[in-house]
Amino acid sequence: MNRRMICNILGKILLVEAALLALPLLVAMAYGEAVKPFLIPMLALVLCGIPLSLISPRSKALYAKDGLAIVAMAWILMSLFGALPFYFSHSMPSYIDSFFETVSGFTTTGASILKDVELLSQGMLFWRSFTHWVGGMGVLVFVMAILPTTDGHEMHILRAEVPGPVVGKLVSRLGDTAKILYGIYLLMTVVEIVLLLLGGMPAFDACINTFGTAGTGGFSSRSLSIGAYGSPYFDMVIGIFMLLFGVNFNLYYFLIIGRARDALHSEELRAYLVIVAASTLTIAWNISHLFSSFTTALRYAFFQVSSVITTTGYATTDFNLWPTYSKVVLVLLMFGGACAGSTGGGIKIARLVILCKTAFSDMRQMLHPNAVATVRMEDRPVSGKVLRGIHIFLVVYLLLMGASTLLIGLDGFDLVTTFTAVVSCMNNIGPGLGDVGPMGNFSEFSPMSKLLLCFDMLAGRLELFPMLLLGPSLWQGHRRSLLR
Amino acid sequence: MNRRMICNILGKILLVEAALLALPLLVAMAYGEAVKPFLIPMLALVLCGIPLSLISPRSKALYAKDGLAIVAMAWILMSLFGALPFYFSHSMPSYIDSFFETVSGFTTTGASILKDVELLSQGMLFWRSFTHWVGGMGVLVFVMAILPTTDGHEMHILRAEVPGPVVGKLVSRLGDTAKILYGIYLLMTVVEIVLLLLGGMPAFDACINTFGTAGTGGFSSRSLSIGAYGSPYFDMVIGIFMLLFGVNFNLYYFLIIGRARDALHSEELRAYLVIVAASTLTIAWNISHLFSSFTTALRYAFFQVSSVITTTGYATTDFNLWPTYSKVVLVLLMFGGACAGSTGGGIKIARLVILCKTAFSDMRQMLHPNAVATVRMEDRPVSGKVLRGIHIFLVVYLLLMGASTLLIGLDGFDLVTTFTAVVSCMNNIGPGLGDVGPMGNFSEFSPMSKLLLCFDMLAGRLELFPMLLLGPSLWQGHRRSLLR
Repeated sequence: MNRRMICNILGKILLVEAALLALPLLVAMAYGEAVKPFLIPMLALVLCGIPLSLISPRSKALYAKDGLAIVAMAWILMSLFGALPFYFSHSMPSYIDSFFETVSGFTTTGASILKDVELLSQGMLFWRSFTHWVGGMGVLVFVMAILPTTDGHEMHILRAEVPGPVVGKLVSRLGDTAKILYGIYLLMTVVEIVLLLLGGMPAFDACINTFGTAGTGGFSSRSLSIGAYGSPYFDMVIGIFMLLFGVNFNLYYFLIIGRARDALHSEELRAYLVIVAASTLTIAWNISHLFSSFTTALRYAFFQVSSVITTTGYATTDFNLWPTYSKVVLVLLMFGGACAGSTGGGIKIARLVILCKTAFSDMRQMLHPNAVATVRMEDRPVSGKVLRGIHIFLVVYLLLMGASTLLIGLDGFDLVTTFTAVVSCMNNIGPGLGDVGPMGNFSEFSPMSKLLLCFDMLAGRLELFPMLLLGPSLWQGHRRSLLR
Repeated sequence: MNRRMICNILGKILLVEAALLALPLLVAMAYGEAVKPFLIPMLALVLCGIPLSLISPRSKALYAKDGLAIVAMAWILMSLFGALPFYFSHSMPSYIDSFFETVSGFTTTGASILKDVELLSQGMLFWRSFTHWVGGMGVLVFVMAILPTTDGHEMHILRAEVPGPVVGKLVSRLGDTAKILYGIYLLMTVVEIVLLLLGGMPAFDACINTFGTAGTGGFSSRSLSIGAYGSPYFDMVIGIFMLLFGVNFNLYYFLIIGRARDALHSEELRAYLVIVAASTLTIAWNISHLFSSFTTALRYAFFQVSSVITTTGYATTDFNLWPTYSKVVLVLLMFGGACAGSTGGGIKIARLVILCKTAFSDMRQMLHPNAVATVRMEDRPVSGKVLRGIHIFLVVYLLLMGASTLLIGLDGFDLVTTFTAVVSCMNNIGPGLGDVGPMGNFSEFSPMSKLLLCFDMLAGRLELFPMLLLGPSLWQGHRRSLLR
């Protein structure tokens, strides 16, 4: 384990976070709010970050194990420090609550322990939503994009942080790939803010809601979420942008360099759009009696489907009150998640498509044992290794979900609340059903449950393995250096 | 596709069912009840069975596809005819209800549409529970055990009907394997009946409750299930026998031929017992405040854990009223199911152990990419083919569960009822939670939902593929014969 290199990278990340805090600090100053809750954490970050980043690595080699450990520790550290502003400003009841809210922010979950969002100061609101924007594209991808890196072994980091079964470089230099991804991300963010401003949304709200959309996070500046505005225009803009941020960003890169056909030909994209269309139509039909017209039902259905499949978690109405069929569709969509390589969480459409294709291919083979079957995805054969990786992901995902539900069950909430709280956190959505529905919150869970849900959010965002292997990887690295 | 051979075997099965109906007929005669509801179906079975069984196959070759089709059709036909006595005696509101109850019987599910079991005549009660006993060990295994077969290609049938990832012959002749399995089954059945009689249970009830235990079915002669007797002795006898019937029957064969060490060394058996012990203890701790003493809580917890993990579904109390943690444990156990090669349903412990071992082995490999890892089960390496089969099983299982929950959701029951009804039927348990809890029933579902749940019960009992591939296999066989 390359400890010096890991410390060096973590140090840089802390310094980046200190810089990121300057933005909410400016907002707080602009609104004449207290600046101390931001200054103290910035100081702490600088004091910890500088010595760490000064440790110069003897070798720059990073292995898969190091990649997993760096990513997990970076996200945990960022959240531990990122919670300090909430804690120092007494915005949240306790440090654990502040930590929960920050993890929920960086992992783009959007689950909140706040009963009344409107009580937060503007600076805090801004920081809370800004964590979504930072977490959406990935903290380390951000570092790779802005800091000069000596290319080579950072691929393991990218692989551990960017969601999806297969991660490829867009261009030969990894730092450039990161810059391209962040460029597209920034551009789409600006476009959404402008569109919301054109519709008459206040500038502050436009930023907050766009951060939540871009990161597929879901924190809003209102307790009633996007429903508070009651504007069909905002619903449509945000609904469509949620969908757009749920698309694999590689496709946007293809569009930019003129390979539109490749982009539109993506099997994952088509599966994603078909699922959205089918879910929207059947939910609209199922809830039409609750609204004045089918068109209105369609609008509410589209917004909610887009919000849940992209794992954003915004709401325009309390879908907790919808009929069972609609709720089952939404719960199933929670598992699906958006496309691989997007800012969304969940299992990812690409994985589901590969799983379904393999299942059907193997079932066909049961009828025709002599036929030769290869599963292809995006015109390329899926290797046995990739397939096995996806199967193991699914098994570990289910095991973690089962174990978490069991432990959260000790809090004694009803089954639907317990189960959907876990599903919602593991898939980085935000609201669930029951007490954690769109109009509810996570404040009533015990501190232990909150920490477990934090673990689930991080595990979900980092696709399980960095979090699950953090303990063993650190311990084994430790044992080896003792033996040396 | 060997159509003539399939017809021949199906004909024999119908004749066997006619013979099986003689037993409840005798019971009805003994109690002076109407015999016509049994005589008409027997006549129908004989009239259909004789011509079919007279079709002599040109070749005895059976392929995997034929095995799947025979098993699926045999179970559907048995249920269609087996429902007739309930229908003709007006014991159930409709033919669909009678069919549901019969499928639930043969698949050893034990889900009932009856609001008041005590209204059934003795003959009907006997037939209802006897279907559990017949279905437990398998309908075709029964046929192979009692009819002279010309060994050769029946392995495909055994493989399609006996649960578990790997099926092996115990002895060289398949017919003998079937006889040994049924011999053990019959012996254990007799022992349980005797033990219940010794405790003072009426002979009729002892038979009924033993049939439900042996087949891991769960139909009881009382609406309050085993709880109606209020006897700790009966609770313990039935609780222990449920566990015993959930063990792989191969282990009993090993015991009989003196290979006790092999039997006790089974990894699946140990995992099974550890799960039972851990679940019982934690549930007892969780529910202890509901009972007068910890010992009483332990007894109720043990009975319920044993009932659910073996997918029997008996109840001694309304666990719908237990705290959330206990309910989560029970729901998780529903998925587990008993051991492979037992009479229970569910995913099977052997599959779960292999899935967990593979997941941990692959995660270890992420930390040490150069290490060579082989997963072993019962001291033998698990082949890639078996592993892939288990993964595909899991994926198809989850897809079917998701699709079923969606469609049952249209009936508009609450989420817990909807979801646990599907889980309970697919895993052949019987009761779920909510409206389908141990004191509830399935009568309120729409006819479409009842048929879908029948499909799920059959799919669960036959381990998915025979049911799912029945359509394609028949259609493709048809198309080929047209082309010839």
